[in-house]
Amino acid sequence: MSRKAHTLVAIFVAIFNNMAVSQETNADLASFVSPFIGTKNMGHTFPGATVPFGMIQLSPETGNQPMYINGQYNKKVYSYCSGYQYNDSTIFGFSHTHFSGTGHSDLGDFLIMPTTGRLMLEPGEASNPGSGYFSRFSHDQETATPGYYQVKLSTYGINAELTATERVGFHQYTFSKSDSAHILLDLMANIYNYDDKNVWTFVRVENDTLITGYRQTSGWARTRTLYFAMVFSKPVKSYGHKKYDQSPYKGFWRKFNESENFPEMAGRNIRAYFNFMTEDDEKIKIKFALSAVSTEGALKNLQAEIPGWDFDQIKGLVREKWNHQLRKIEVKTHTLEQKESFYTALYHTMLSPVVFEDVDGNYRGLDNNVHPSDGFTNYTIFSLWDTYRALHPLFNLIEPSRNADMINSMLAHYDQSVHHMLPVWSHYANENWCMIGYHAVSVLADAAAKGNTSFDLQHALEAAKNTSQVAYFDGIGDYMIFGFVPEDKSASSVSKTLEYAYDDWCIAQLASFSGDSLTASIYLKRSANYNHVFNHKSRFMQPRLSDGSWKSPFDPLQTHDQGFIEGNAWNYGLYVPQQVDSLVSMMGGKAAFSAHLDSLFTMHLDDSYFEQTEDITRDGIIGNYVHGNEPGHHIVYLYNWTNEPWKTQSRVRMIMETMYGAAPDGLCGNDDAGQMSAWYIFSALGFYPVCPGSPEYALGSPMVEEAIVHLENGKDMHIIVRNQSLKNIYVKKVLLNGIELKAPTINHFDLIKGGELEFLMTSKPVLK
Amino acid sequence: MSRKAHTLVAIFVAIFNNMAVSQETNADLASFVSPFIGTKNMGHTFPGATVPFGMIQLSPETGNQPMYINGQYNKKVYSYCSGYQYNDSTIFGFSHTHFSGTGHSDLGDFLIMPTTGRLMLEPGEASNPGSGYFSRFSHDQETATPGYYQVKLSTYGINAELTATERVGFHQYTFSKSDSAHILLDLMANIYNYDDKNVWTFVRVENDTLITGYRQTSGWARTRTLYFAMVFSKPVKSYGHKKYDQSPYKGFWRKFNESENFPEMAGRNIRAYFNFMTEDDEKIKIKFALSAVSTEGALKNLQAEIPGWDFDQIKGLVREKWNHQLRKIEVKTHTLEQKESFYTALYHTMLSPVVFEDVDGNYRGLDNNVHPSDGFTNYTIFSLWDTYRALHPLFNLIEPSRNADMINSMLAHYDQSVHHMLPVWSHYANENWCMIGYHAVSVLADAAAKGNTSFDLQHALEAAKNTSQVAYFDGIGDYMIFGFVPEDKSASSVSKTLEYAYDDWCIAQLASFSGDSLTASIYLKRSANYNHVFNHKSRFMQPRLSDGSWKSPFDPLQTHDQGFIEGNAWNYGLYVPQQVDSLVSMMGGKAAFSAHLDSLFTMHLDDSYFEQTEDITRDGIIGNYVHGNEPGHHIVYLYNWTNEPWKTQSRVRMIMETMYGAAPDGLCGNDDAGQMSAWYIFSALGFYPVCPGSPEYALGSPMVEEAIVHLENGKDMHIIVRNQSLKNIYVKKVLLNGIELKAPTINHFDLIKGGELEFLMTSKPVLK
Repeated sequence: MSRKAHTLVAIFVAIFNNMAVSQETNADLASFVSPFIGTKNMGHTFPGATVPFGMIQLSPETGNQPMYINGQYNKKVYSYCSGYQYNDSTIFGFSHTHFSGTGHSDLGDFLIMPTTGRLMLEPGEASNPGSGYFSRFSHDQETATPGYYQVKLSTYGINAELTATERVGFHQYTFSKSDSAHILLDLMANIYNYDDKNVWTFVRVENDTLITGYRQTSGWARTRTLYFAMVFSKPVKSYGHKKYDQSPYKGFWRKFNESENFPEMAGRNIRAYFNFMTEDDEKIKIKFALSAVSTEGALKNLQAEIPGWDFDQIKGLVREKWNHQLRKIEVKTHTLEQKESFYTALYHTMLSPVVFEDVDGNYRGLDNNVHPSDGFTNYTIFSLWDTYRALHPLFNLIEPSRNADMINSMLAHYDQSVHHMLPVWSHYANENWCMIGYHAVSVLADAAAKGNTSFDLQHALEAAKNTSQVAYFDGIGDYMIFGFVPEDKSASSVSKTLEYAYDDWCIAQLASFSGDSLTASIYLKRSANYNHVFNHKSRFMQPRLSDGSWKSPFDPLQTHDQGFIEGNAWNYGLYVPQQVDSLVSMMGGKAAFSAHLDSLFTMHLDDSYFEQTEDITRDGIIGNYVHGNEPGHHIVYLYNWTNEPWKTQSRVRMIMETMYGAAPDGLCGNDDAGQMSAWYIFSALGFYPVCPGSPEYALGSPMVEEAIVHLENGKDMHIIVRNQSLKNIYVKKVLLNGIELKAPTINHFDLIKGGELEFLMTSKPVLK
Repeated sequence: MSRKAHTLVAIFVAIFNNMAVSQETNADLASFVSPFIGTKNMGHTFPGATVPFGMIQLSPETGNQPMYINGQYNKKVYSYCSGYQYNDSTIFGFSHTHFSGTGHSDLGDFLIMPTTGRLMLEPGEASNPGSGYFSRFSHDQETATPGYYQVKLSTYGINAELTATERVGFHQYTFSKSDSAHILLDLMANIYNYDDKNVWTFVRVENDTLITGYRQTSGWARTRTLYFAMVFSKPVKSYGHKKYDQSPYKGFWRKFNESENFPEMAGRNIRAYFNFMTEDDEKIKIKFALSAVSTEGALKNLQAEIPGWDFDQIKGLVREKWNHQLRKIEVKTHTLEQKESFYTALYHTMLSPVVFEDVDGNYRGLDNNVHPSDGFTNYTIFSLWDTYRALHPLFNLIEPSRNADMINSMLAHYDQSVHHMLPVWSHYANENWCMIGYHAVSVLADAAAKGNTSFDLQHALEAAKNTSQVAYFDGIGDYMIFGFVPEDKSASSVSKTLEYAYDDWCIAQLASFSGDSLTASIYLKRSANYNHVFNHKSRFMQPRLSDGSWKSPFDPLQTHDQGFIEGNAWNYGLYVPQQVDSLVSMMGGKAAFSAHLDSLFTMHLDDSYFEQTEDITRDGIIGNYVHGNEPGHHIVYLYNWTNEPWKTQSRVRMIMETMYGAAPDGLCGNDDAGQMSAWYIFSALGFYPVCPGSPEYALGSPMVEEAIVHLENGKDMHIIVRNQSLKNIYVKKVLLNGIELKAPTINHFDLIKGGELEFLMTSKPVLK
């Protein structure tokens, strides 16, 4: 734990009395959230202000790294996927959109930076003081709580405070007396920035307090336009902008001095500034609304969400929103750190997908047209290769209505897709095609399997089927021909085959729920395709070529060129969640499978296997088990399919203890849009959805002492853990409403009836 | 007259029986229109297919000139303002938007080119056969009539036919048998093209016949996006595109082979192609709809305007639309060539402004938001420095409702303008700021003065006042301070001062009509500001400096740096239409003024005075009178304010005879969005609006033998010219309903009562 985390703990101890969980609590659970967790190293979380599932993530930028230097990829940029690195001591400003925990990036829209003194429009370099507008800062003068961020910008003596509603960022800057105070609006700032990322910028100074405009970028989202409306609490004294474009054509705009006090700015690359005079301790506030539809939409959002100027009131309302969300699961833990880890994880599961429509229900679709979200709320940021595993299952447990909205958003995406595909990895009305598979089908199947069917099942099935038949998508054509993806046709072929097979199983489930038994049988057959990449000789999933032969040489520890992505045959090869029993027997039966798992967790992996992958650090690894990458997330629960479920119990507790911590470096890898945190929430409660699309959870070993999950159906699920301690990590027995469970699984429908789930813990493995 | 024009005449003679004008006529007046007129030299008209005031101008591109070569302006580009030059023998394709007659350019959207054989995606150079996809063509195999264009693309043996409705272009290509027929969609083609003009392109192949997408450009219109929906009559066999972008970032799109049969294309610079197999004489048809709102809007437009596939039916309907429009003025002329000149001029007055809204009434506003056009039809392309002079006055005569729609469009522009200004020169939801003054106020005043008040007068007055007070606009701030624009502060200061003074007079008129006498008196005072640039010593309008002194040296024949634009002190200095009497007396009285005019028309101007101006040719000049530029358009009528109105009569006939002709080179300068043609229409009818904003017309010498103007109020104005001939160019007397007019003026309200205006002609000047 870092020094900073210790400070946090000291603060929290004062308000943390290890109080019993109560259904009637008004506990300020937000006080157990530290948005700094994951901001050091590769967690890729952000400390800024946001509401649950809000479109605005108003957060500081400490990274000013270009994506390319002299045409070469700049590796440093990866650290700044969410804009902030805890080890930094400079801030370049505050922008309004950030991913939480992703392993690739974009966004960072509309960077605001308050300064005083000589006007500097370029950000400069952190390593070169005075080279630009950036400010120094210190963590001692920085606060981050749910929905609120504060930092003293020491270079300018400005105290910056941020809060946000769903679509509006609220800035409050306390200046010293100055006749040259500036608010910069750097429209060239981007996360994952490079020279031609900005496509177009358009800004209007509507009057001396209202600015509107938009920016179009081409990055991870290839065709993205974001509109804004920005209001100052005080009239602008003067303003201007600098354009960095080199076009030979100026049109008749050359007739004007556009750079100063000219109310219309347009171009690819623009930085604007607004000048003020300030008194000592004078606060200049900014309300900054976003819309993907229009500036008109942004203005509507602004007026609807923050009509007034009371910063503290909004800050308070936002904290209450967070408490309302966090109270969905109330826990008692053994240590304060565990509680902080838990609620910060819960917080991190609520940062995406985000609401993606204006207050009037209009949103921009994948087809670039504007649509009304009739009958649902539209969401975006679907990091589905990550989040289908535990995040959407978590939503099915604690937020089924919201998850149904997300599914309806995916179906709208499908309707608007020229490929007739559900989202793969989508954000801001764009498909970015990141990672493999089409795991939206898992989200559909999981919801259907858990009775969360506030969407059109037939439509969902049609969407799932069409998605699975787009021949030009990532090896699918060959998969349909060969029954596996041949490595010579499409790389990462084993990962793809395994995931397509699982996705096929999900489609089969959807078909069953829809009463379409023919489709169900077709896809059930496809779902066994994992067999085609299993080499019975080596007992590994291995890449195959289109002539049917196994690719050689073969190294089961290697990721690259060996048929896998973010994993290898040893770990990723265990991905048959839909038929674990079958996998176990293919691999030689329970004992052999257990031994494989043991080896996985204990083997020594040479450094050379890691250096190629930028988002794994040694911290996130146990042997050849990589918790920082998602393909392993179910693995620890696979001992349940052997005779040694106690190994699941010990490993899951070990992972919770060592891979999650209440400190800025508390995440061992990218939080991946909440998936890492959702894994933690489930595991901390004692169960995990090994196979989304099935209503069964695998039981593990809970971290909590007690928990109440307030369900949307009005019922409460009470988890009571007897004899819990850091040493009593083994489960002696589990009782559901007093009746002992015979197998290490529990059914979703049993859970959501409410009642008591009781774990009896012990310090010794319970052998079968 | 060219050989081609002779051919046309031969055709027309067959159907031209010098028939008497009749109110009941069903005459095919479209047969007297030759869209080729003005396509040779600097007329800048286009020969392609369009409906009256339609958004689509589907026309061939013979110019493939970049705007810059090695960073230097390429003068040749100017010849291709409308894409076509009659002397060319190659065609690069057919694009959907063109200005008619403008002296600067933009548009050229969505170029379609049919080819066969080896696929070539680059246009190549006309001078280098085989270097690209262009085709040779010959005027012998080319036809242009209102709403229809046909050409044989000899390189490919393809017969190309085009027609269009308001928002949809209709292509019909007749191929020979080919297994490699292509339809190219060159999204990099632009008029006034340069490397970074394309901002973004987005294309979706929705299915095997429907393509949608948009393109965003930054040119004369700085922030312009145009959407399309395109349907083929036959399924595409295969397709693809080439992207010419150099971005280092490819995103995860690198996973696909995007270039072939991949249904989504996006980037700055794209050329797409669609492959077909064709039989002999097989027709492939394309319907290509535009929208400035969305692809959804374009699709709506397509479905509403051309639901079927009958090319000839649409071609016929469009011709009937033209006939309906052209029949608003029926004329009998002495020669066929005069009739062709007249109806082609009338045709050219109906090519802009164009309808700029979707069939559902939604349009994109200047603020980039989408608005419904409640209560009016929205128009764009306002070349106001040109068109306020005679084109809008012509509309007030023959199309007052449409002119009111245009005014309401201008008021919407004002409402959406961040500058709180009426349009200066606007197109496609952009202000391009071309030329000087803010002559929208003249259009408002002229409509009000003529009782065409289907708009909110108070709103119009507010808009006019605010427009006239935007201090940062083109010298207005100094104009308000000094009472003139000082040349050391803002170039072309005399032109600006004269036009601002006239505009002030228009605002005074508007204020009077609105009953706001205070504003009227303020602006009436401002309207006398022309006095401040009149040097009583030299008797010239001269540039002044901000210290009050006259700029020296002064050359009254020079344009550049002498206070003028597109004119000099000799001709532009005569611009005081609101107080011609006062100008006459300032210049020494009627005789001196008349002598000045005589000199103007007879003096020899050294070549050096012309070479600087790209849009004037010697053909468009009589002495120092430049008919090809608008500041002179009223001058020929100024003899009416002297004792020698007969000189107006002879000069106006001379100009009609020498500056307009029924041949491709029939326009002596840019048609300027119909202004040159509107001058001709008025003059041909025998009167002209010297001072728009006043209901008085100055009488000239009619070209027609007889005319009936069918007015919107249901009445007919009958113009009868007795003793008309090419020699009888002088007016002996003019009778209105049998009563002789005493002065050489006629009032608009007298005209629109209907009845007879009778000119008695003679071969001798009628001296006073």
